[in-house]
Amino acid sequence: MTAEANAYGTVSFLTDYGMRDEFVGVCKAVMLGYAPDIRILDISHDVPAHDIRAGALTLARAVPYLPAGIVLAVVDPTVGTDRRLVAVEVENGLLVGPDNGILAPAVAVLGGAQRVVDLTNTDYHLETPGATFAGRDVLAPVVGHLASGVSMTELGDLIDPVLLMPGMIPLPEFRIDGAIVGEVLWVDHFGNCQLNLGTEDLRAQGGEVGASLELTLRGETHRVRWVETYAEARPSELVVVVDSYGLVSLALDRSSAAALTGLGVGSGYTLAPVGTLDGGE
Amino acid sequence: MTAEANAYGTVSFLTDYGMRDEFVGVCKAVMLGYAPDIRILDISHDVPAHDIRAGALTLARAVPYLPAGIVLAVVDPTVGTDRRLVAVEVENGLLVGPDNGILAPAVAVLGGAQRVVDLTNTDYHLETPGATFAGRDVLAPVVGHLASGVSMTELGDLIDPVLLMPGMIPLPEFRIDGAIVGEVLWVDHFGNCQLNLGTEDLRAQGGEVGASLELTLRGETHRVRWVETYAEARPSELVVVVDSYGLVSLALDRSSAAALTGLGVGSGYTLAPVGTLDGGE
Amino acid sequence: MTAEANAYGTVSFLTDYGMRDEFVGVCKAVMLGYAPDIRILDISHDVPAHDIRAGALTLARAVPYLPAGIVLAVVDPTVGTDRRLVAVEVENGLLVGPDNGILAPAVAVLGGAQRVVDLTNTDYHLETPGATFAGRDVLAPVVGHLASGVSMTELGDLIDPVLLMPGMIPLPEFRIDGAIVGEVLWVDHFGNCQLNLGTEDLRAQGGEVGASLELTLRGETHRVRWVETYAEARPSELVVVVDSYGLVSLALDRSSAAALTGLGVGSGYTLAPVGTLDGGE
Repeated sequence: MTAEANAYGTVSFLTDYGMRDEFVGVCKAVMLGYAPDIRILDISHDVPAHDIRAGALTLARAVPYLPAGIVLAVVDPTVGTDRRLVAVEVENGLLVGPDNGILAPAVAVLGGAQRVVDLTNTDYHLETPGATFAGRDVLAPVVGHLASGVSMTELGDLIDPVLLMPGMIPLPEFRIDGAIVGEVLWVDHFGNCQLNLGTEDLRAQGGEVGASLELTLRGETHRVRWVETYAEARPSELVVVVDSYGLVSLALDRSSAAALTGLGVGSGYTLAPVGTLDGGE
Repeated sequence: MTAEANAYGTVSFLTDYGMRDEFVGVCKAVMLGYAPDIRILDISHDVPAHDIRAGALTLARAVPYLPAGIVLAVVDPTVGTDRRLVAVEVENGLLVGPDNGILAPAVAVLGGAQRVVDLTNTDYHLETPGATFAGRDVLAPVVGHLASGVSMTELGDLIDPVLLMPGMIPLPEFRIDGAIVGEVLWVDHFGNCQLNLGTEDLRAQGGEVGASLELTLRGETHRVRWVETYAEARPSELVVVVDSYGLVSLALDRSSAAALTGLGVGSGYTLAPVGTLDGGE
Repeated sequence: MTAEANAYGTVSFLTDYGMRDEFVGVCKAVMLGYAPDIRILDISHDVPAHDIRAGALTLARAVPYLPAGIVLAVVDPTVGTDRRLVAVEVENGLLVGPDNGILAPAVAVLGGAQRVVDLTNTDYHLETPGATFAGRDVLAPVVGHLASGVSMTELGDLIDPVLLMPGMIPLPEFRIDGAIVGEVLWVDHFGNCQLNLGTEDLRAQGGEVGASLELTLRGETHRVRWVETYAEARPSELVVVVDSYGLVSLALDRSSAAALTGLGVGSGYTLAPVGTLDGGE
């Protein structure tokens, strides 16, 4: 998050509510009731239902670009349990949501939690006619109050940031034969498959741009090129490319790598510089 | 609708236009052409095509939370017929749309219609190059003019509010054996099935939180518990819960009751306290 | 585009990014980082992936209604090739996007390009950690700078507007026997099928409102009426109607003409006044 737009009171908003029901609009209306001048910036409301990891990754990819302000993120399969609802202070803003891992990767990207409040002060919540709808009845009014100037310490008790639920992003395994074993983190709208692998890690295992890699998916090994741009791929050629987030991804030019390979989020892969596996060639 | 944000000129907007075509954006652009300072709050644009009842229920659920201002709701299978296009004044705002039932439940929730105008004054409409697109050519410019200060009585003739098309929300039947026969009003994004049944009505028939109920769906009777929160349900256990709108609903914890039961909007149900049916146990 | 809202700095925004990932929100965040006071108006983000023609037509239908300001349109299967990224000045605003045809029909609707800049000045771009994401790293920051007052000529070199990639909208063929042979331009959310045929052209071939036409789809000829409004159609009757954009379309009352006929974008049709084909009757 950058500082320029701070004075404008931006709330960046991510949920798994979908856009068919009124949930997103009602949460926005509640926030605006307390803070009519804020700008609400939608990150996504189509996170797969109850998928904390997908929501956490989407948010972590977005936050480096968001204006300073408040982030409200709600993917909450744990509604009604004793999971906390929290506000997490970071250097340039606040993140608000359930403490179930949805916020953790974004908090890490933003430099870590400075203070954390457990949102237990019901003076700042809405009454509900039935079961609590945490987004509408707790989180949206809390964000509205925060945006209108209420101090975070009014909203509940400070708790130790180390108590926050950590994120669950799988790390790749680096084998001594040079192979990297990992999984697909994200399949984007265009079918590009982002791996849990950074550029430097691939280089450290001996990969280099322009050279070939051995990619094993479901027991089948393919020879793929590491190219710099999608356009360098030949028609229907699966390539490795460092995506616009700096992670290694599998891609096809103008087409879906996920559709070609059958990969989905969580699918396994093994990647190795050519010649690494089985003594090379 | 609450009064705080009135000065900001919020237009809350609901349609069945979908988000693929430019319809929603163009209607917003037309409104902004007349009232550049308004805030437009999207409630939903994914109401099922032509489904007046679904749109009316979505709007009625949302309006208690909306800021004071104008509501524009367009689900209009009746375009081109002699159905009226109307502006309905309520205590804290105006609702604008076709007079086909889409507005009626929301108007009732907001305390009833005070004045109604039939939007016949074409001075406030756009010319169209072909068939009239009511949202773009009539309703959006009318809302833009209203938001910019034009009096509703400029827009057409006042008509008697009793002439408004009523909503069509089905009431449950309370049988003398204690059973309640009704239908599913709404299946939300997470698969929760809202019934046309309020908490007090279920209590009046002998139901109580914590006790079991006999739920008959498609001729099969199941024993279900009435619990207070979704999290009280055991894995895969279908429960009855009062939802966040105060209505009785069928739910599964972290999963879709609709997928489990096959229920959809309009599906029938019979619900009775245990021991009510067939002399009890 | 009309002039009223110019001072409010509206950016109208169309992409094929979808709404599930964070792409749209991140591009907005980048724009707001440079120009915090702009209003961003979404036209559509659900253009079919990589479908330049669909995006170009959607934009061209929308622009007559948009406020003056900037249009950002990104459908970019050509990312990474040597296609240019451009800013095109028209009478009341600027259109920004890849020079691959996505802007061309809108530019034509708005009176043609006055000046064009090739957006090569990387001082106004973002650095990327990997492959360039043109929307986020080039186009959004360029639009943000333009909205904040940077002159378009700062952003790169002026190029001759005649170098812009033209749009590819198919024209119908007018046969000497009176038949018109063309294709479906657009199937809207409700299943109406817009043809590549204007009202005047249909009249010029002998068609008139109220009369019948011979419509040939997939080798089968149907007799259809040219009616003025959708509501004039009888139940399940396929009709010809001039749509709200002034183009000839095939429609059913309250139902989907595309579902009935199996037509999709690009499907062929032959349309002729009755009696024209085969010597008439």
